[in-house]
Amino acid sequence: MAITIALDCMGGDHGVKVTVPAAIDFLKREDDVSIILVGLADVIERELRRYGTTVSDRLSVKAASEVVAMDEPPAHALRGKRNSSMRVAADLVKEGVADACVSAGNTGALMAISRFVLKMMPGIERPAIASFLPTVNGRVCMLDLGANVNCTAEHLVQFAVMGSCLVSAVEHIERPSIGLLNIGEEQIKGNEVVKDAAELLRASGLNFRGNVEGSNIYMGSTDVIVCDGFVGNVALKTSEGLAQMLGQYLREEFSRSPFTRLCGLLALPVVKSFRKRVDHRRYNGASLLGLRGIVVKSHGAADAYAFGFAIRRAYTAAKRGMLASINDKINAMQQKAA
Amino acid sequence: MAITIALDCMGGDHGVKVTVPAAIDFLKREDDVSIILVGLADVIERELRRYGTTVSDRLSVKAASEVVAMDEPPAHALRGKRNSSMRVAADLVKEGVADACVSAGNTGALMAISRFVLKMMPGIERPAIASFLPTVNGRVCMLDLGANVNCTAEHLVQFAVMGSCLVSAVEHIERPSIGLLNIGEEQIKGNEVVKDAAELLRASGLNFRGNVEGSNIYMGSTDVIVCDGFVGNVALKTSEGLAQMLGQYLREEFSRSPFTRLCGLLALPVVKSFRKRVDHRRYNGASLLGLRGIVVKSHGAADAYAFGFAIRRAYTAAKRGMLASINDKINAMQQKAA
Repeated sequence: MAITIALDCMGGDHGVKVTVPAAIDFLKREDDVSIILVGLADVIERELRRYGTTVSDRLSVKAASEVVAMDEPPAHALRGKRNSSMRVAADLVKEGVADACVSAGNTGALMAISRFVLKMMPGIERPAIASFLPTVNGRVCMLDLGANVNCTAEHLVQFAVMGSCLVSAVEHIERPSIGLLNIGEEQIKGNEVVKDAAELLRASGLNFRGNVEGSNIYMGSTDVIVCDGFVGNVALKTSEGLAQMLGQYLREEFSRSPFTRLCGLLALPVVKSFRKRVDHRRYNGASLLGLRGIVVKSHGAADAYAFGFAIRRAYTAAKRGMLASINDKINAMQQKAA
Repeated sequence: MAITIALDCMGGDHGVKVTVPAAIDFLKREDDVSIILVGLADVIERELRRYGTTVSDRLSVKAASEVVAMDEPPAHALRGKRNSSMRVAADLVKEGVADACVSAGNTGALMAISRFVLKMMPGIERPAIASFLPTVNGRVCMLDLGANVNCTAEHLVQFAVMGSCLVSAVEHIERPSIGLLNIGEEQIKGNEVVKDAAELLRASGLNFRGNVEGSNIYMGSTDVIVCDGFVGNVALKTSEGLAQMLGQYLREEFSRSPFTRLCGLLALPVVKSFRKRVDHRRYNGASLLGLRGIVVKSHGAADAYAFGFAIRRAYTAAKRGMLASINDKINAMQQKAA
């Protein structure tokens, strides 16, 4: 099955400078994909020329006359810019022209537009942002990472269902294990929402393993970790900050003196492979789950290398039928509950 | 002014094996400190003999016949074990015999016992757990790290006052800058509690710098970061897990082949100084703030080196008059508000 992906080319801190080369590169890597570049046509075409590329049967341009600013209020982007590149990319998914869309733009606007255009899946009240993070033995899918600042226990259960389906579809794991992020592993710990969610999850038929703590995220204790968007966002951004600080410390230590610089030079092959392994760009691309369509959000500051991973996230989800898988599982749970 | 510290010798995963040698070592480092070892007298005395040490005018033993287990419910520890080492250590602070107490025991039990024995400061409704974390340019005091899973905006403001006083007293900073942990720097972001807290903080007279994100924690954006205990605990433990994973990755990369092992050997001086710099043991020791006495909680898994830092935290807070400083600032704020 060939996959068509609509790219919001104007989003992110760097716009076409990042999205266009990433698209060209991705087409070289995968034979069965077509990409629609959405945005200001002249800007996109100029960028294509810079790479000596023109449109083809696998690469087309869809004009959109407006651009959502990175700091624009979501409601304004939704109501005031009906021909934005973000909106047109979502429309293409809605119309069935594209199987998925990818944007590095304003998260709030992307959420609002996706929700308005694509609508929620039946049985899901709130969309969630899910991403994969590295662990000592593989990777973990964590959600919500910032879409919802106030969640009920029922929302957390819906996140668990969606995360479980995402991992099933993408990683080919039959019954992904699920952990509930809490501040202690004991059942008595945590706030009321988390305690109630644990109870619902234990009765859900999902492969629920109980509470996990922040330290478990990178330990690979479970395949999925569920939390509300406030906590998830803090955990994610705290990790980014810590990794950045440790990187800076390492650079400082290696540049302290001619001797340590020599040490650094000698250790370079190892440091390089370490850096590659922890390169957060390889984990770029968060799925907006719960929508009737595949939407992937790239980090706004992503470079072309990182943006390519976000395109891959969309490609894999479409290729492996993530939406149908989520739908089936929710239907099965509802029939069981009825 | 000489400082007397009561140590709960039985708490933590390793009990006297860690607490007693840490105490002996600390006495060698500071001339103006006395330590009271609290716990099962025969166990403590046997451990002292192992180090060829006996009681002296600066090192005494206070017998306590019970031990609070690491997984014991706080209410049980509080009501059922009135002669526990934890309780007796807190009693010594209450009676004015000790200026501070330190325990590596069960956090919930330590909170409950401290609160019962020492009582809250006037104007503070809930105790908070505060700790220092390393940043790119120094360190930051973060609270609450797990004492309160549900906070009101007013609680967050009280945490800001306490954190500010702790930093003033310990770091000699006149008006520490304060950040409110949120999921975006814009005022419109976050949940209602955080938004209300921001408004109160802006009017508080404290040096409030607005919202900070998880990524700001290690960037040293502010001297103090305030958050509810659920979020703070997740951020802290996520950091521990990430640091552990990165350490493991680094070890794996250096042991991949004879060549990379040689690289590791050559880079050893640098890796060692890096490790020392990020050694979390140097940040061990969280202050339980809001109580009418100084109580420091050590990590349960701390070794003697780490436990020494927790003792130092208590020593510094007592030496620099942290309690009086918090009291004065709260009084000043209340008079201003009245």
